[in-house]
Amino acid sequence: MKRNKLAVVGVGHVGSYVLADAMKTDLFSEIVVIDKNKDVALGEALDQAHATALTYMTNIHVYDGSYEDVKDADIIIIAAGPSIIPTDKNEKPDRALLAEVNAEVIREVMEGITAYTKDAIIILITNPLDTMVYVAENEFDYPKGRIFGTGTMLDSARLRHAVASNYNIDPKSVTGYMMGEHGMTAFPVFSRLNVQGLGEKELDKHFQGKEPLNREVFGQKVVDAAYRVITSKGWTNAAIAQAAVTLAKSVILDERSIYPVCTTLNGQYGYNRDVALSMPCIIGKNGVEQQLEIELDEKEMTLLHKSAKYIQETMKIAGTGKHKKVN
Amino acid sequence: MKRNKLAVVGVGHVGSYVLADAMKTDLFSEIVVIDKNKDVALGEALDQAHATALTYMTNIHVYDGSYEDVKDADIIIIAAGPSIIPTDKNEKPDRALLAEVNAEVIREVMEGITAYTKDAIIILITNPLDTMVYVAENEFDYPKGRIFGTGTMLDSARLRHAVASNYNIDPKSVTGYMMGEHGMTAFPVFSRLNVQGLGEKELDKHFQGKEPLNREVFGQKVVDAAYRVITSKGWTNAAIAQAAVTLAKSVILDERSIYPVCTTLNGQYGYNRDVALSMPCIIGKNGVEQQLEIELDEKEMTLLHKSAKYIQETMKIAGTGKHKKVN
Amino acid sequence: MKRNKLAVVGVGHVGSYVLADAMKTDLFSEIVVIDKNKDVALGEALDQAHATALTYMTNIHVYDGSYEDVKDADIIIIAAGPSIIPTDKNEKPDRALLAEVNAEVIREVMEGITAYTKDAIIILITNPLDTMVYVAENEFDYPKGRIFGTGTMLDSARLRHAVASNYNIDPKSVTGYMMGEHGMTAFPVFSRLNVQGLGEKELDKHFQGKEPLNREVFGQKVVDAAYRVITSKGWTNAAIAQAAVTLAKSVILDERSIYPVCTTLNGQYGYNRDVALSMPCIIGKNGVEQQLEIELDEKEMTLLHKSAKYIQETMKIAGTGKHKKVN
Amino acid sequence: MKRNKLAVVGVGHVGSYVLADAMKTDLFSEIVVIDKNKDVALGEALDQAHATALTYMTNIHVYDGSYEDVKDADIIIIAAGPSIIPTDKNEKPDRALLAEVNAEVIREVMEGITAYTKDAIIILITNPLDTMVYVAENEFDYPKGRIFGTGTMLDSARLRHAVASNYNIDPKSVTGYMMGEHGMTAFPVFSRLNVQGLGEKELDKHFQGKEPLNREVFGQKVVDAAYRVITSKGWTNAAIAQAAVTLAKSVILDERSIYPVCTTLNGQYGYNRDVALSMPCIIGKNGVEQQLEIELDEKEMTLLHKSAKYIQETMKIAGTGKHKKVN
Repeated sequence: MKRNKLAVVGVGHVGSYVLADAMKTDLFSEIVVIDKNKDVALGEALDQAHATALTYMTNIHVYDGSYEDVKDADIIIIAAGPSIIPTDKNEKPDRALLAEVNAEVIREVMEGITAYTKDAIIILITNPLDTMVYVAENEFDYPKGRIFGTGTMLDSARLRHAVASNYNIDPKSVTGYMMGEHGMTAFPVFSRLNVQGLGEKELDKHFQGKEPLNREVFGQKVVDAAYRVITSKGWTNAAIAQAAVTLAKSVILDERSIYPVCTTLNGQYGYNRDVALSMPCIIGKNGVEQQLEIELDEKEMTLLHKSAKYIQETMKIAGTGKHKKVN
Repeated sequence: MKRNKLAVVGVGHVGSYVLADAMKTDLFSEIVVIDKNKDVALGEALDQAHATALTYMTNIHVYDGSYEDVKDADIIIIAAGPSIIPTDKNEKPDRALLAEVNAEVIREVMEGITAYTKDAIIILITNPLDTMVYVAENEFDYPKGRIFGTGTMLDSARLRHAVASNYNIDPKSVTGYMMGEHGMTAFPVFSRLNVQGLGEKELDKHFQGKEPLNREVFGQKVVDAAYRVITSKGWTNAAIAQAAVTLAKSVILDERSIYPVCTTLNGQYGYNRDVALSMPCIIGKNGVEQQLEIELDEKEMTLLHKSAKYIQETMKIAGTGKHKKVN
Repeated sequence: MKRNKLAVVGVGHVGSYVLADAMKTDLFSEIVVIDKNKDVALGEALDQAHATALTYMTNIHVYDGSYEDVKDADIIIIAAGPSIIPTDKNEKPDRALLAEVNAEVIREVMEGITAYTKDAIIILITNPLDTMVYVAENEFDYPKGRIFGTGTMLDSARLRHAVASNYNIDPKSVTGYMMGEHGMTAFPVFSRLNVQGLGEKELDKHFQGKEPLNREVFGQKVVDAAYRVITSKGWTNAAIAQAAVTLAKSVILDERSIYPVCTTLNGQYGYNRDVALSMPCIIGKNGVEQQLEIELDEKEMTLLHKSAKYIQETMKIAGTGKHKKVN
Repeated sequence: MKRNKLAVVGVGHVGSYVLADAMKTDLFSEIVVIDKNKDVALGEALDQAHATALTYMTNIHVYDGSYEDVKDADIIIIAAGPSIIPTDKNEKPDRALLAEVNAEVIREVMEGITAYTKDAIIILITNPLDTMVYVAENEFDYPKGRIFGTGTMLDSARLRHAVASNYNIDPKSVTGYMMGEHGMTAFPVFSRLNVQGLGEKELDKHFQGKEPLNREVFGQKVVDAAYRVITSKGWTNAAIAQAAVTLAKSVILDERSIYPVCTTLNGQYGYNRDVALSMPCIIGKNGVEQQLEIELDEKEMTLLHKSAKYIQETMKIAGTGKHKKVN
């Protein structure tokens, strides 16, 4: 009997939370922890192994390993690479430098993984996410659908949280998402925002909001939320880790849930394998089972193109896509 | 209707995991995050609030606050203070300095808390744990039982894990605990170790262990386990946070589970309010409902006294107990 | 410290599942089981108490009791009364007879409860649900909002399941509900149906459905689903019990989730305390925190009136509302 | 990627609870429901499928099927057959008749299963359990370890519950089990009873019990508990179903937990493939990984032989073992 196996690659702020969250589920019989810093991998695995001796914990076999251990993994979650490059004395903007640095990290990780498997479903978290997904998927010919990024899952959670807070309701009662880049150019698809059947224009009629549902104000709230978390604690990890594990669950149990994740476009919105960005997708046992090319209104379409362009600029910095360096 | 409320005081490596674990339960309707660094409290609360918008998450009201917010808390988990004092240029041994520094931290925290409540059950995690419990409980006249420390819950989990690993069984099938100090002088109560009715001497007969169950070897394994986690990742948080949340569950649901936790002794083993250390206790709605004065064999008794003495030395450094400074 | 307490009144097919589901949560410290048949209450409580000794179960205090035990309950779930009256030799249609019989059951239960509390949030499951809610709420002056019925939660789950099955997606990715009566005249609010921002008309464009999304066909599927469950196994309990526990969670944790539940109308859609039926409501610590008077299209409005009229006929049979018998 | 699959065979009082409990876990991607009464299988599957549309439920693919659907099952839980044969006008004692009837049921089920797989781990619940396990395992050459019965898991839970109730502690803090037959001749292994390191003789010293821990009294309490559940509600299902799902979890996640389950003896206690009864076993991915031949005291040994003899008498009635009818 084949047992479900997860590999977590990179256990810094984000990966360690992914590991902690995965240990609380019954999804995996085995979890291997891989990190460039072997000590950290050992420490995280051992700490979690000790926790399995506590009353309500499942006896998951958790251990530190190497790329060889991914050969029979069902899911690989990649959170390797720094999340921020300190900028003070640096002339380059940090996001650009981050793209350069992490593109190399992801290339190294993907070489490590693809030496052993192209069967596992890979969920990427490393930023700048969209460019990293593009690199990992396209430079390594990873089978279509089997690799994707957490994308705007987090941005979307923040949007739903902002809307729900305004109306003092459960964010799970809000349907809505951001599309495009996971980052500053992500845009809320207000035309599709929905609270149990009530659309954008109706919300202020049915609920006593703290303030009117203005697109720009609420779009800005989401950007601010990200900024506030990062500047106040130095990184974000809790919600993004939970997002990754939610996606893993949808894969392992073949739930076919619809989530906004990042994967290379195949003709959608006019982009043909020249950019990866987030749109709602059906997530099942094969990873991305279907990308949903939601119709956008004119303003949203403009924002999509702006976001795609921004990602392509980052791709250029990372030396991928049509800017791929030929050795 | 009164809703269950948790306060987490101190959200560094440990407190942030306590928060993350608590968010995965249905125990609390409300969680307030308090930290000396208000930015960090805000960041952690906000990150977790975003996670509530994800599919399987409960809509817990999580927010950053101040001591005033503990006034209606049911449980307060304290993980404030540094876990390690870097030592390189320091003449004092770091554990002593840690006791000094954190005694002041705990005094400040307890002043903050007791200004608003003496009703909440307080679960302490800050190290050196036993001394911190002594300070918090005795210097603030906190009602007996309503305050206790995670104590040797973690050390005990490591012991069960070591035994279970040796025999390749679920650590939850192992009953056993460490007593005394949470730290280097904690000792395994081998005379009470039990695997589904099989005692210490019988285990090697029934299971094919990787090595014989030698008291010293396995006692050392537990010490090494702690050391390996700390030196390899720099701190321990996953298992200790889970231990604290397990204790909180036993309180909130009045489970009356038996766990080895730290509280001031009241005559047990000949100690009368002059030391706090870990022994098995019944944990229920009133916190420590009963301390179980387990009979120890001669060797274990010696180790208990050694451990108590070590704690009392730390108490001296912290200026508490009979060494309490009078202003 | 006040512990959360649930009372389950009536542990037949439905109530026993409510109990079983509640035992799997961490929402309650204490559960009292009440049934006219004291033996059954004892048997169910004892069976569940035995289960608390198993590895992953919480030590919830579960016991059989009487109405006196509801005095400090936070939530009361009522599933008393028969779910079907066998009809073979009966001249009256069984639904009418069921209304008569269960109106008396509910009156007796409410007398039992209100002798001890009007503070608990009451969740009603007994059929014919809408009439029972009307009786319980209005004949006993139970505080507004503190009593409501599971209503069309189940019908709505069936609708989402039917839509999700057609498109092979997770039903949790579908937003949609039935309104009106819990029963044959419930109607799907297709104008508000939504799959992650895609409305009724767009679904067949984005997904390859097994068949086109025809209102009548899918409305009929929901009716058939209910019929198939009842005729094939004799009753429905799994989904309805889970619905009740989901509502209880939203109350206990004050989640303020939006669910379609049944409560007396207070002017909505032109009905003023003369009928109880289901519409989306915000469910929080006070029970129904807000009823959402969703705008319906013309066809849906006709169906609402038809459903209201049907309920009022049942109310007449039950001798409640303006047909209340005066002694 | 292979998804985890459960088959539940027989969805009466017990099987329907097994199904309900399994639906609350994340262990299975797919659950097939099989029952001689195809309508009941359909009804149970459909009711559970509807529940997947509720907020916190996992989108498990649950459906009614036939034996062919077990061909790729990882786990099969069998709860087929009546649990009681009404006796009023019957000359034979009902337990004997139950053995006759259910032996035929189990033979039919095993024929159905083994036509498609001998790979699945089979967990048997049908009574008289020990005889049914013997029939299923030995008459069908099912691979050793891959089939076992819930055995005295339930009896043991009742024992722990009785002890825990006496001392007002969490039954999960009690280690202890019954051995032998699942039924009236099961005996508590008091010599191995343990509360966090405290043995039988020490309990009354450390805890204020409601009454002294007398072997006969507490043995009788367990028998009475079973009797009280059955006579008061007509059957037992809640705890036994939870026990089966706990075992399934230990298999699916390869937890290697130790539970008292029923399987044919292979030399243990002098029995060589001539009886099946319960003793503590390690449960992992291969089913029963190891049977633990715990040393018993003299009185317990006598009770074991008495229990084995009783089972062998039932085996005779069922026409299995050395009494197997040759056609």
